[in-house]
Amino acid sequence: MDIHDLATRVQAGERRALARAITLVESGRADHRAQAGALLDALAPLGRQALRIGLSGTPGVGKSTFIEAFGMFLIEQGLKVAVLAVDPSSARSGGSILGDKTRMERLSRQKNAFIRPSPSQSQLGGVARRTREAVALCEAAGFDVVLIETVGVGQSETMVAEMSDLFLLLLAPAGGDELQGVKRGIMEIADLILVNKADGDLKPMAMRTCADYAGALRLLRKRAYDPQGFPKAMTVSAVTQDGLTDAWETIQTLIAWRREHGHWTRRRAHQARHWFEEDVRHGLLSVLDQKDTRARIDTLGDQVANGQISASRAAADILTHLRPVRKI
Amino acid sequence: MDIHDLATRVQAGERRALARAITLVESGRADHRAQAGALLDALAPLGRQALRIGLSGTPGVGKSTFIEAFGMFLIEQGLKVAVLAVDPSSARSGGSILGDKTRMERLSRQKNAFIRPSPSQSQLGGVARRTREAVALCEAAGFDVVLIETVGVGQSETMVAEMSDLFLLLLAPAGGDELQGVKRGIMEIADLILVNKADGDLKPMAMRTCADYAGALRLLRKRAYDPQGFPKAMTVSAVTQDGLTDAWETIQTLIAWRREHGHWTRRRAHQARHWFEEDVRHGLLSVLDQKDTRARIDTLGDQVANGQISASRAAADILTHLRPVRKI
Repeated sequence: MDIHDLATRVQAGERRALARAITLVESGRADHRAQAGALLDALAPLGRQALRIGLSGTPGVGKSTFIEAFGMFLIEQGLKVAVLAVDPSSARSGGSILGDKTRMERLSRQKNAFIRPSPSQSQLGGVARRTREAVALCEAAGFDVVLIETVGVGQSETMVAEMSDLFLLLLAPAGGDELQGVKRGIMEIADLILVNKADGDLKPMAMRTCADYAGALRLLRKRAYDPQGFPKAMTVSAVTQDGLTDAWETIQTLIAWRREHGHWTRRRAHQARHWFEEDVRHGLLSVLDQKDTRARIDTLGDQVANGQISASRAAADILTHLRPVRKI
Repeated sequence: MDIHDLATRVQAGERRALARAITLVESGRADHRAQAGALLDALAPLGRQALRIGLSGTPGVGKSTFIEAFGMFLIEQGLKVAVLAVDPSSARSGGSILGDKTRMERLSRQKNAFIRPSPSQSQLGGVARRTREAVALCEAAGFDVVLIETVGVGQSETMVAEMSDLFLLLLAPAGGDELQGVKRGIMEIADLILVNKADGDLKPMAMRTCADYAGALRLLRKRAYDPQGFPKAMTVSAVTQDGLTDAWETIQTLIAWRREHGHWTRRRAHQARHWFEEDVRHGLLSVLDQKDTRARIDTLGDQVANGQISASRAAADILTHLRPVRKI
């Protein structure tokens, strides 16, 4: 594969080249990893930055419909929009969010849109690296907004928030008693809560739900990187498109404030450091995937299971063989 | 410290020796780790097994009161009961479950009871190993039942379930709409749901809540290691002690069935293997805590944060220095 040529075509914004580049960073093969590294290094000097928006919402809130409507809205503003899906569970569940582009039929036909389903992959560490690299490729390809969509599985929301400039939480209208169904941790990472389906019969309930969440958000500790009034809750309708303009203006206000006060840069710096350390941890653990190590672990694991050796002793045995050489 | 003497006194069921032994396994010092290993090896041949019961419940469900009542009930049956608390967040929150034994005043005064608060410790990997070793010490000291209590923080419930023979979920009476507040994952690991506070004015609501959970449990997939009718939901009252006999009989029925069908042994074998692999992972990552490695990571982290080097390149640099010698 000619990496120089691929880099040129990604940089020119060719969607097919971008798709191919993402396939490359998604590969676990050592030669592909090397090529992916060279590709990312070749594109890094461009210094292009998109607005990275993390987006979460449980099934049934109308996430695909919202992304389609919001994506179309952004494209009408003259922006280029990429949508990446993160679903660490897709390998197990078989199904995958965005597995079917037809769920965003209009958006996927736009030349200024790029939609990428979640790769089948179960290990969060691997998913994180690949998604970050896919985001970097979308930025290099000149996309203005990268939407990183996740389902609320395990730590995936935290992971996506750690690679986003801004985190959106999409919720459905609900009775007051259901509010506690939202994990507290998610409330704490959300910059903007959008209560979807604020249309037709559900509109009054959506407004009440929004008011409830706004109240709940006010109870959270003030964050240093937020201007007055954030995090915020608003209503939207993916169907009537009501509220999309407001939501986008709110996002722009928040981002402008954060840029002005240095939070944008600080956040990206903090995230880069975080992912560096994550990569180190992931790399250290990858030795366990090697065939001979795996075989030894399986053998010892049998002995541990049979009670022939204690878990601690067996672990010490493996670790003796894997003891790192420290040359630092 | 005379490890042989300590082992003898733990084996004799001396509570002060047990407390001292647990302090030893909780220590991170290398010489203490070696002594702890020797102590556990000395006690392992006893082959004593307790019934390990994991217990979770959010604040407000009356967990301490339940443990006190249930613990007293078990002691009245002639059993010896140990209570260990696991709270990975205690280092941060300052407060700790079971931090104050006065919360279980009656139980803590019983000579057949042993109560151990959660150690101040933030890292889950370390908490897991220490708790497992404390459980092993309680078993060696001749306790019949070891209650491992956790708050529902992060992965702590999964961790406790992975070292328990049986997992109890304690819930409070609640309106139907609040049912979803229970994390789905917890429903899936629970063997028995106990709706507490089934007394006085709350009794009818507790019965309805119990029926709701029973219905929800029926919707879960049948598990191979469960007899007909499990997992089960029941009501109890820690105050009036209603339901404690039923709950204990239900636990005994379940455990007898599992023993008879080989699930008890298989589960312990599976858990031992799991913890062996966790110990290996934890051990591999511990190299990152070494001073010189940490310093190098901090320096590179600054460069990553400043954009002088990419996260991937910096990680590759560290990993080159930490590359393990594989002698397997």
